[in-house]
Amino acid sequence: PSPAIAALAQERLAGLATPPGALGRVGEVGAWLSAVQGEVPPHPLTDVRLVVFAGDHGVAAHGVSAYPAAVTEAMVRTIVAGRAGVSALAKEHGVTVTVLDVAVDADLADLPAAITAHKVRRGSGAIHLTDAMTREEADRSLALGAQVARELVEDGAQLLMTGDLGIGNTTPAAALVAAVLGLPADEVTGRGTGIDDDGWTRKRDVIAQALTRAEGRTADPVEVLTALGSADLAAATGFLVEAASLGVPVVLDGLMSLACAVVAEALAPGASAWWVAGHRSTEPAQAHALKSLGLEPLLDVGMRLGEGSGAVAALPVLRSGIAVLRDVALLSEILPS
Amino acid sequence: PSPAIAALAQERLAGLATPPGALGRVGEVGAWLSAVQGEVPPHPLTDVRLVVFAGDHGVAAHGVSAYPAAVTEAMVRTIVAGRAGVSALAKEHGVTVTVLDVAVDADLADLPAAITAHKVRRGSGAIHLTDAMTREEADRSLALGAQVARELVEDGAQLLMTGDLGIGNTTPAAALVAAVLGLPADEVTGRGTGIDDDGWTRKRDVIAQALTRAEGRTADPVEVLTALGSADLAAATGFLVEAASLGVPVVLDGLMSLACAVVAEALAPGASAWWVAGHRSTEPAQAHALKSLGLEPLLDVGMRLGEGSGAVAALPVLRSGIAVLRDVALLSEILPS
Repeated sequence: PSPAIAALAQERLAGLATPPGALGRVGEVGAWLSAVQGEVPPHPLTDVRLVVFAGDHGVAAHGVSAYPAAVTEAMVRTIVAGRAGVSALAKEHGVTVTVLDVAVDADLADLPAAITAHKVRRGSGAIHLTDAMTREEADRSLALGAQVARELVEDGAQLLMTGDLGIGNTTPAAALVAAVLGLPADEVTGRGTGIDDDGWTRKRDVIAQALTRAEGRTADPVEVLTALGSADLAAATGFLVEAASLGVPVVLDGLMSLACAVVAEALAPGASAWWVAGHRSTEPAQAHALKSLGLEPLLDVGMRLGEGSGAVAALPVLRSGIAVLRDVALLSEILPS
Repeated sequence: PSPAIAALAQERLAGLATPPGALGRVGEVGAWLSAVQGEVPPHPLTDVRLVVFAGDHGVAAHGVSAYPAAVTEAMVRTIVAGRAGVSALAKEHGVTVTVLDVAVDADLADLPAAITAHKVRRGSGAIHLTDAMTREEADRSLALGAQVARELVEDGAQLLMTGDLGIGNTTPAAALVAAVLGLPADEVTGRGTGIDDDGWTRKRDVIAQALTRAEGRTADPVEVLTALGSADLAAATGFLVEAASLGVPVVLDGLMSLACAVVAEALAPGASAWWVAGHRSTEPAQAHALKSLGLEPLLDVGMRLGEGSGAVAALPVLRSGIAVLRDVALLSEILPS
């Protein structure tokens, strides 16, 4: 974002007929949008696109999730049918949702080609036992995500969001955060969709084992994705890098989105200037990732649904920020003379 | 709200194709709206009304505010012109804003009669030196707020919000919270629109002096309003009591709204079941009031603008809650059989 435009946006915010700072984060996010759009005041967001990167994860067969892997396919179909949690939120707030089958472990050939044509593999490896994928698959996944971002922007998207779908995905996501930030498994392991204490311990052990297995390979972000991630998480990472490279803002979501953001920032330092955090999830690894990127979420309402739902739910706060910068009088216009 | 409908709403929430609890506060507020509407799922909110209760405060002449009292009149006119902070947010989120001159210390006779016709007085008393108003004026203000709520509901309002406008108003509002909850001035005094340390100390002393002056009169909520409040705060209190009595939900805003809510709950115990907290402001007295009512705000974005802006900014979270309860598939519909 241009520092000159950012300064002009701050100047406009400071000049509004409101006490200094009284608009809080709403004013700040409006000024940020102004800066990333390169325009003061910012323009309204009429074309917002969410991509839900879907994939299965080998770890799901090892007791790390409250749900069976078959739910991934069912939820892809529910999003296609427009009846998932994120579908309802996206309809309410005017967001276009695309789901992308990057690595679902099911045959979805009956779905539209746009969803399935770029599938990288059926499921990613159980990361405590084997690499998530080959290095070539990681590269291909990154390129796929980048291509999707480019196509959406060429099609007119003004704001992007990443969402995730896939039983077991909080395990590789937490492992990515741990590997990049150098944290122990204990600190990144959360309850995902709702595991009990035994499940939490199993999940923590899987992550610890995976981190040990990948030792010595964590300096290279692509190698981290290869060893500990998944094809769907790699695609989302490529999407974030490309959006930043194109200068298009992104609203991040929960743990998966933030794990990819941490890897994307390692791949392309400075990319995070183009991102805003939609919401604070209940996952500890998301909190670590947010902190490392210096991002403070707009919403904190205890959501842990995934699918990009927290990003979509936060969109009205961005719109509030745009509205105040566009429509509020300047103090100079209204003060009694 | 009907316990039977509340139970049905919780049942629907629990049956959605999302992990239990994964929708966090969004799911909870959707279920609450269902209960207060008496309908499962809840219906969309198409008619939302905010009333901004405006008034001046004698304490403003005693160094408790960063702005001169003349700003009150200027801001009333800015709202009427649709160019205040809350105007921008209300336009963005589809809220109808009415401003009501309850006790502005200016002649606003050139404005539409609907705004000025029910004026109770010009400014309220400096509460550390004298009562805010007479008991008769407090009763009249309460009745005025109740009448406004009734008229809006008769006109089709599905959801109400209270906003405030008036230089100096955080001083009587903090005093009300302190008096009703039995707190010392130190714990309720905040920075308002942005006073410095000396201003804070003056304000704290004014509140302490006012609380001492009103000693022995705090058991009766109307007497508390008479001694320590203002005509505009009394009107907002009457509005909240009447809305609850009519069974119409209200989104509360910042300190002024919460101070009135604390008094309204004292006047009509149980009324708070009809209210949801829009946002957490930066005022300590608001936090005390929220806690005493058992309310947890939907937004926490550091806003301290007043005008009802935090309630309006929170509306999309309520709409998100309605959307998920209406449009998300039931788990029973999508699970692989």
